[in-house]
Amino acid sequence: MVAGGDWGEFEDAILREFHQRKAPAIVVFNKSDLGRPAAGLGERLRKEKVSCVETVANRGEGVLALREALVRAAPEEFINAPSMISDLVPPGELAVLVVPIDKEAPKGRLIQPQVQAIRELLDGDSYCMVVKERELRDALERLKRPPVLVVTDSQAFLKVAGDTPPDVKITSFSILLARQKGDLAQFVQGALAIEGLKPGDRVLVAEACSHHPITDDIGRVKIPRWLRQYVGGALDIHTIQGHDFPDDLASYQLVVHCGACMWNRRELLTRMLRCRQAGVPICNYGMTIAYTLGIFDRALGPFPDALETYRRWKAERAKGSGPAS
Amino acid sequence: MVAGGDWGEFEDAILREFHQRKAPAIVVFNKSDLGRPAAGLGERLRKEKVSCVETVANRGEGVLALREALVRAAPEEFINAPSMISDLVPPGELAVLVVPIDKEAPKGRLIQPQVQAIRELLDGDSYCMVVKERELRDALERLKRPPVLVVTDSQAFLKVAGDTPPDVKITSFSILLARQKGDLAQFVQGALAIEGLKPGDRVLVAEACSHHPITDDIGRVKIPRWLRQYVGGALDIHTIQGHDFPDDLASYQLVVHCGACMWNRRELLTRMLRCRQAGVPICNYGMTIAYTLGIFDRALGPFPDALETYRRWKAERAKGSGPAS
Repeated sequence: MVAGGDWGEFEDAILREFHQRKAPAIVVFNKSDLGRPAAGLGERLRKEKVSCVETVANRGEGVLALREALVRAAPEEFINAPSMISDLVPPGELAVLVVPIDKEAPKGRLIQPQVQAIRELLDGDSYCMVVKERELRDALERLKRPPVLVVTDSQAFLKVAGDTPPDVKITSFSILLARQKGDLAQFVQGALAIEGLKPGDRVLVAEACSHHPITDDIGRVKIPRWLRQYVGGALDIHTIQGHDFPDDLASYQLVVHCGACMWNRRELLTRMLRCRQAGVPICNYGMTIAYTLGIFDRALGPFPDALETYRRWKAERAKGSGPAS
Repeated sequence: MVAGGDWGEFEDAILREFHQRKAPAIVVFNKSDLGRPAAGLGERLRKEKVSCVETVANRGEGVLALREALVRAAPEEFINAPSMISDLVPPGELAVLVVPIDKEAPKGRLIQPQVQAIRELLDGDSYCMVVKERELRDALERLKRPPVLVVTDSQAFLKVAGDTPPDVKITSFSILLARQKGDLAQFVQGALAIEGLKPGDRVLVAEACSHHPITDDIGRVKIPRWLRQYVGGALDIHTIQGHDFPDDLASYQLVVHCGACMWNRRELLTRMLRCRQAGVPICNYGMTIAYTLGIFDRALGPFPDALETYRRWKAERAKGSGPAS
């Protein structure tokens, strides 16, 4: 928002950053009663496909035009978000959602990806069973026909893989989020990087929310433990929370990111882009867990393209050429 | 909170109101560096079992003592809330939750009572199926053993009653909330008052949240329509939203209240008390719907005490004596 039509190098830099991130931009000239934008500016911005709106905020002038510009500029995904689960479960079919209740589960609630999955299934005319990992076997036994998909919290992956018949597909909420909000192929490549980790390597564990970690926290305790066990030695693990992302990304051998359930797609993709620029592989919680527990193939079962990519890269790596970037 | 130890008739009146509502009270003497409470006051308050804390808020003094007093004064239900559903579904058993997706359902979400029910079932080592009313019949067909309970949004009561085998108990989220947050017996009495409504009677529809009503709103369109159909004529229906409750309660023949899912038990019980004081029957949305649709007996099936009360009052009413107050 530019007051009184001032425009300079600073504004140009912001706009370039927006273009680079492919973020839609609206330029709002506020206090337009005190000064209008320079003659050629509006024309130049329109050529760059940037919407311009003039407002006088303290009188409410132009606010409706601004709202309309916001709706027009909103990316398609705001209107029709890519689906998280409904394309994997046909109408009239059943999914089973495995929801462990650990110490960090807020009282009386379900976490956002669980609610989102239930709602998407209902919106898609399918339905679901919601069950803890301990009751999963009984719940599956109770069905005349098996579900088309079992989705679990990553923390219960091993037990769920054991209790679900091999012909039933399983995946995790975290992998569903990776597909919906991130770039599944880049995460697959990130998981492969776990294979190359050596004791002493630097790993950044990044969490979107700044929750208060308690005993057995997934990002601080469980994932570091599984990674160490897989690598067979100590790792130099750093943990961050919230919106800051370090500048020395290139100094890490791997970034492990949470599902970013409370973020929008753009925010996570921006981080993935920064990792690609820094040449550091990034993986998410669920895929890291599936990889270190040795059930990566099964967890990618519902996503044949990603599974194919993984198998190809794995074969290339085995031949010593490493995954393509 | 009383600054500098001032205490007068105003404070006494507030305290009396608290005692009358059986609300625990803590008296905080703030600015206690500028003035302490009068000599006899502390002693008098302690005799009334009122906790007293002295603080200097701008220096943070006494804040820890205040927090401790809050925890001590918190009612038992804050620590161990009465259960909404888990006592009706034994460990290892299955409940089916019917969740219609209407135009007012916020995108990507489930409403609070639905989430609360799912979570309580998981906490109680049971599990659930979540399904729209349209897929309910298929979902039940898919089971080898029927569920022990079907809970529906009140709006789908008739269809759910039709699609659920007669030996399976059904109720609504609204009735579960009535039991957990209100007084089921008083609501049963309120439902009976629907029987005595005459065309032209005044009905107050009260909603806790101030959401933006749209087409076919339950409180503004559906319940008034069902009530009119049951009574067989026009009613004088008033609608209120939020925390204000009218002073002329006695001028209504019936109050119909929403489930108050976003309120605590005290707030709803306070309203029920005010209705009792004004001599006006109060019923909630789900029980009103069940009553006007003629499935009240079945909806009370899971609650034998309430069902017995209802049948007794109904029998008394049939003999012309009306329900006991």
